Amino acid sequence: MAEELSVLPSWQDGEIKNTIIKFVADVKNPKNINFVEAKDRIAVFDNDGTLWTEKPCYFQESFIRYSQHQPNCSEKAEKGATSLTVEELIPMDGQVKEGMTVDEYKAEARNFLTTSKHERFDRPYVELTFKPMIELLDYLRQNDFQVYISSGGGIDFIRSFAEDAYSVPPQNVIGSAILTKFELREGKPVLVRINELVKPMNDKKGKPVGIERYIGKRPIMAVGNSDGDLQMLQYTDDHQGHDLMMLVHHDDPDREYQYDEGAECALTEADVRGWSVISMKNDFIKVFGWE
Amino acid sequence: MAEELSVLPSWQDGEIKNTIIKFVADVKNPKNINFVEAKDRIAVFDNDGTLWTEKPCYFQESFIRYSQHQPNCSEKAEKGATSLTVEELIPMDGQVKEGMTVDEYKAEARNFLTTSKHERFDRPYVELTFKPMIELLDYLRQNDFQVYISSGGGIDFIRSFAEDAYSVPPQNVIGSAILTKFELREGKPVLVRINELVKPMNDKKGKPVGIERYIGKRPIMAVGNSDGDLQMLQYTDDHQGHDLMMLVHHDDPDREYQYDEGAECALTEADVRGWSVISMKNDFIKVFGWE
Repeated sequence: MAEELSVLPSWQDGEIKNTIIKFVADVKNPKNINFVEAKDRIAVFDNDGTLWTEKPCYFQESFIRYSQHQPNCSEKAEKGATSLTVEELIPMDGQVKEGMTVDEYKAEARNFLTTSKHERFDRPYVELTFKPMIELLDYLRQNDFQVYISSGGGIDFIRSFAEDAYSVPPQNVIGSAILTKFELREGKPVLVRINELVKPMNDKKGKPVGIERYIGKRPIMAVGNSDGDLQMLQYTDDHQGHDLMMLVHHDDPDREYQYDEGAECALTEADVRGWSVISMKNDFIKVFGWE
Repeated sequence: MAEELSVLPSWQDGEIKNTIIKFVADVKNPKNINFVEAKDRIAVFDNDGTLWTEKPCYFQESFIRYSQHQPNCSEKAEKGATSLTVEELIPMDGQVKEGMTVDEYKAEARNFLTTSKHERFDRPYVELTFKPMIELLDYLRQNDFQVYISSGGGIDFIRSFAEDAYSVPPQNVIGSAILTKFELREGKPVLVRINELVKPMNDKKGKPVGIERYIGKRPIMAVGNSDGDLQMLQYTDDHQGHDLMMLVHHDDPDREYQYDEGAECALTEADVRGWSVISMKNDFIKVFGWE
């Protein structure tokens, strides 16, 4: 137990932290009825709002606005315009970045995320990741989990920073995808983004589809924060053995943001089905690494 | 060197085996100029004709014919009909197996492959894997490679047996995919196959697209046997560092089959670019495990 007390240092001691530690201990203990072989210890995490901030808009929208020389999302909101939904954002990304190679796109996104600053926190976007969640990803990997991201956001956008920020390599990132085509440019083979979505959008009912397509196994753990994660959590909840479903609840207006909007169904179902709800205010000792 | 002599026991000593051993030794040696970090040691293998037999037709066609109570591919050939190409096979598979859940499909495919027998060899299809290639997959993984399959064949079909036959888990299988949809059946969340292809077909120019979509990194090693693998090999050959491209050449009519048909372009390009051509007749001490 001494060892366990030192894990997840940015998590407040309490029910949520205990639930995580007990779940991991159970699935890795061959003598426990809930033991799960390492090869089946699959955990999937949403990205926006779960691993990093998603306000005042998805950072992928900020990226597009920046590259189009448009006012940022706060300025847009002051004029009464709402932020883009996933359904609006992904086709716009496909259109605006058409014709780029995947490598060019990722380099541009990485450059934006590491140099441009968030309007409220005045930090590069890559520093808006949640420290307790990164500790959780590390903790799971230390216990032989395979950690995946399953995001409604663009797969290339997330891959541009996920290996550095979360130690999640590109092959463990699932997201909404743009069709690419293989061609030779100056004799070199490249993959070029074309303006067409790969069906389905990796959101809502599309999340289990993406998990099956990329992983081919049901996760035993899923963590999200919004209604876009609902079906992913339902899909995980039906696992035959032990499983853990969690929602990050944004209830901390001082350190981050406070909102239930867009998460109403997920929070209701969490209550009904007994999924764990993580309070950012109470369960996170720190929200960001630089605090 | 004593240790190295015992590896790849079903491979004849000679140029090809030496090429493999030297490549692996180089990329894992931090002092070698061709050193590659373990996280980037990605190897991709075609399946049909590369890891197992693809004659008298793709085994996925045999599966469909069997489940439709049609004569087998040899009987079909006697009547002068040609076997299905990937472009014909995948849409047919999508049509015939529409409405099944992915789990049901995989169970049916696994049952077929482990119980029905190949018309010439009179062995279950799963026993038609090439022993030297399985040794190669093992050898690469022992040296911290991540081994992927990238097949023109159906992803669910290959996932039904790849973990048992090749120790390749489902998340390391890339193939042509059928769209699925999430639904609740008797209250349980399932993924149902619908009759629509996910673009592109994972063959020819589609293979690099699939590699980028699923892995997000360029491989440093690619092994195929036909023109369907050409672009995958070209894509790998452009890697900035050290890389290895290989083709399995079917030149052994006694133990397996002899044909260049469908591999003409790949064999020509192998000659031009110096890719390694594996002679099944000369480089394989054994072809199948049961010999």
